[in-house]
Amino acid sequence: MIMHFLSKLKTKVKTEATPIQLVVSAYLILILLTFFLLNLPIFLKPGAHVGLLDSFFMSVSTISVTGLTTFPLSQVYNHAGIILLEFLFQIGGFGVTMLATVIMILSGRKISLQQRQLIQVDMNQPRLSGTVRLSYSVFILMVLLQLFFGMLFSIYFTYQNGISHLKEAIFNGFYISISAVTNAGFDITGNSLAPFRHNYIFLLTIMFLIMLGGIGFPVLVEFQQWIFYKFHHPQKMHFKFSLFSKLALLFAIIFFIVGTVLIFLTEFRGQLANESWPGKLMTAMFYSASTRNAGLQLESLKSFQTSTLLIFSLLMFIGASPSSVGGGVRTTTIGILLLYLAAFIRGRRNVNIFGRRISQSDIQKAIVVTNLSMLLCMGAVLILSITEHFSLISLIFEVAAAFGTTGLSMGITAGLSVVGKWVIIVLMFIGRVGMLYMLLLFVSKREQDFNYEYPTEQVIIG
Amino acid sequence: MIMHFLSKLKTKVKTEATPIQLVVSAYLILILLTFFLLNLPIFLKPGAHVGLLDSFFMSVSTISVTGLTTFPLSQVYNHAGIILLEFLFQIGGFGVTMLATVIMILSGRKISLQQRQLIQVDMNQPRLSGTVRLSYSVFILMVLLQLFFGMLFSIYFTYQNGISHLKEAIFNGFYISISAVTNAGFDITGNSLAPFRHNYIFLLTIMFLIMLGGIGFPVLVEFQQWIFYKFHHPQKMHFKFSLFSKLALLFAIIFFIVGTVLIFLTEFRGQLANESWPGKLMTAMFYSASTRNAGLQLESLKSFQTSTLLIFSLLMFIGASPSSVGGGVRTTTIGILLLYLAAFIRGRRNVNIFGRRISQSDIQKAIVVTNLSMLLCMGAVLILSITEHFSLISLIFEVAAAFGTTGLSMGITAGLSVVGKWVIIVLMFIGRVGMLYMLLLFVSKREQDFNYEYPTEQVIIG
Ligand SMILES: [K+]
Ligand SMILES: [K+]
Repeated sequence: MIMHFLSKLKTKVKTEATPIQLVVSAYLILILLTFFLLNLPIFLKPGAHVGLLDSFFMSVSTISVTGLTTFPLSQVYNHAGIILLEFLFQIGGFGVTMLATVIMILSGRKISLQQRQLIQVDMNQPRLSGTVRLSYSVFILMVLLQLFFGMLFSIYFTYQNGISHLKEAIFNGFYISISAVTNAGFDITGNSLAPFRHNYIFLLTIMFLIMLGGIGFPVLVEFQQWIFYKFHHPQKMHFKFSLFSKLALLFAIIFFIVGTVLIFLTEFRGQLANESWPGKLMTAMFYSASTRNAGLQLESLKSFQTSTLLIFSLLMFIGASPSSVGGGVRTTTIGILLLYLAAFIRGRRNVNIFGRRISQSDIQKAIVVTNLSMLLCMGAVLILSITEHFSLISLIFEVAAAFGTTGLSMGITAGLSVVGKWVIIVLMFIGRVGMLYMLLLFVSKREQDFNYEYPTEQVIIG
Repeated sequence: MIMHFLSKLKTKVKTEATPIQLVVSAYLILILLTFFLLNLPIFLKPGAHVGLLDSFFMSVSTISVTGLTTFPLSQVYNHAGIILLEFLFQIGGFGVTMLATVIMILSGRKISLQQRQLIQVDMNQPRLSGTVRLSYSVFILMVLLQLFFGMLFSIYFTYQNGISHLKEAIFNGFYISISAVTNAGFDITGNSLAPFRHNYIFLLTIMFLIMLGGIGFPVLVEFQQWIFYKFHHPQKMHFKFSLFSKLALLFAIIFFIVGTVLIFLTEFRGQLANESWPGKLMTAMFYSASTRNAGLQLESLKSFQTSTLLIFSLLMFIGASPSSVGGGVRTTTIGILLLYLAAFIRGRRNVNIFGRRISQSDIQKAIVVTNLSMLLCMGAVLILSITEHFSLISLIFEVAAAFGTTGLSMGITAGLSVVGKWVIIVLMFIGRVGMLYMLLLFVSKREQDFNYEYPTEQVIIG
């Protein structure tokens, strides 16, 4: 299956297709492959039947690592099916090009300049040199993390439920680890993380893994480089973090704190009323981290206030960093737009941060991506308000969850009409691939270079 | 009262205040004056009592020509009170500077250069010469139109209800005429225009008057000039409409058509189902025109679909032209942002229309104004969702109606909490004054000139 995809990719690389066109078509091919696999009887429980549209919906949800489903997973897929899903989350989470790189390295093939450029685009690396090796080492790091925390969770579950449930403990332990790192957020237990809401160490670990997946691979690459320099050249520390990494970290922290404070304020007399003060804070922090992309939950979302559900929708819409396992508008994109608005209010012409100036073309992209994403989501809510009979807040929530590939739902996914399901499918796809790539899809190779003519430092939009 | 305001204005003009600071403070002074007047017993019905906050709310609603009220007008104000309101609608509708100009001309005073600059800013005229005379002639035109159609409506009502109701017919005839031209939209009958829903000539007349008020005074000024040239220099027709007038007309037409089509599509099986095809079209057209700013209605809004109410909210948020009787983000502002997005998608660097290039600073303003307006309204909905207990759609609708100074409501205004009323007051004020002026309020005189350094033609944003 992967070889089939690779050969497709190789043929395409030789054509005049732009890297972005390759990335988007690779996602489409992966979705079709997933669709084929998920319909194989060996992955289904006996007697389970899923309609074609629901199965396609599930394929897009899996490859976009969203987690919205129109049917309960545990009633349809057997253990083999769930393990297949965990592999597919990896593919969806890491993205097409990173996996292709890893496979090519593992198979000992020579990676051409064109293929290196493809990886460079997907990893948003300004330099071509070393990108392949770095992608590979981030991939290894992420896989090791999933294995390490998978084992840790397995040991914890075995300790909790006794050695007689060892097989179940290992299964669930690895599922939760993979689900957190890839920000998949699919629920196989039926009550997500509800049993662990008072285990703060557990919740903090999950939040750490979610953030690791959502911070973006380029940031992880730079952290690896930084650690490398720190240990190998401790006397001459000339390593510098890129502007993009600084912005990605800054906005990840800002949105996390703002989300926590807002959730705390709207719910401290509501859903959080009966919890201790550390419990209130922990729950608010957990939802602030989880709604931005992962979509894991501690309780039924119906028990939250409308205001909190609006805040969740906003956090889902913002999403994760570019080139991460996540979707949405992306933190840095919204962040740069906010910086631009602030600069205008203060009468400044340029957006300066961390001693650098954000280029005009990046600001332009941030504006276009954010505004078109807003228009897309508003249009989607409008269509759903015509075709569906659910409450407005549940429609807004569903749209934000799909575009942000968060995958939380107020329970309306299964009840969507055919039009409604297609709307959500389109949102999940655009949300994962990114609005900017969708726009640049139709721009020819030469025109895409226009963002490299300014002397200022480039950051990643979309 | 007006002399008091004028003396205030004159003192201020001599200080270092910018024209925008003068305009905004004049609005504030007018609101306080209105607040004082509306509390005088001679304008109130015997025994009527209105709380201070409700009275202040009514003052802001009157001067911003919004039309939201927390109490039924007809139960509180006597005939003198309603006539006072009609005068206040003129002041609110025409705006501070246009009225000051007219009063100064009428009182034979010399208008200083500073005052001319003030008028130029409020009328968004690129040239200083002739602005005062033109403002005056537009004012006269608008007043004559209100008188003419007021008489026409009075005759029509007398014809309908018999000569015995003459006084009532004149009162209502002028009230509807003034309410339409100034886009006030306050309801004194308790059922707005419901009795006239099948009188298409009547509805078309009202729509024409609404659009005249909403198209913007600079456009009317240019139309006057165009007619002047056409009659006085018919052989050498060298008069050219400005880019702003062309854009204002273009987007007024586009948003009107798009609104009509959307309302038609969402309601042709709902609220419009029992009407004839011309009736369906007429009602859709009427709401498309009315929701953008005037706020007149043909039936209870509760009978519309959620999707239609979302479309209404969008149209209210867009609002009218800059420098018109209306509010909201303004048509040309949203229009330029949409042109900018379209240009990016097509890979163009510049926004060209009608053989001209839109300047970068205008695009910048359109982006900032639209995005901050969106943030403001989202923040307002979030606050109201915490403080109020009404449905989400009725909160979204109320916020859009206040910011767009449309003044339609799903009937929740009277039930708003104290915080809720203040939120709506702030939205009405910013919506009428305009987001751009609110931003430029804190920018000093010299910095405001930065929009005049590009060689391309300026248009009006905000
Ligand atoms: K997810
Ligand atoms: K109005």
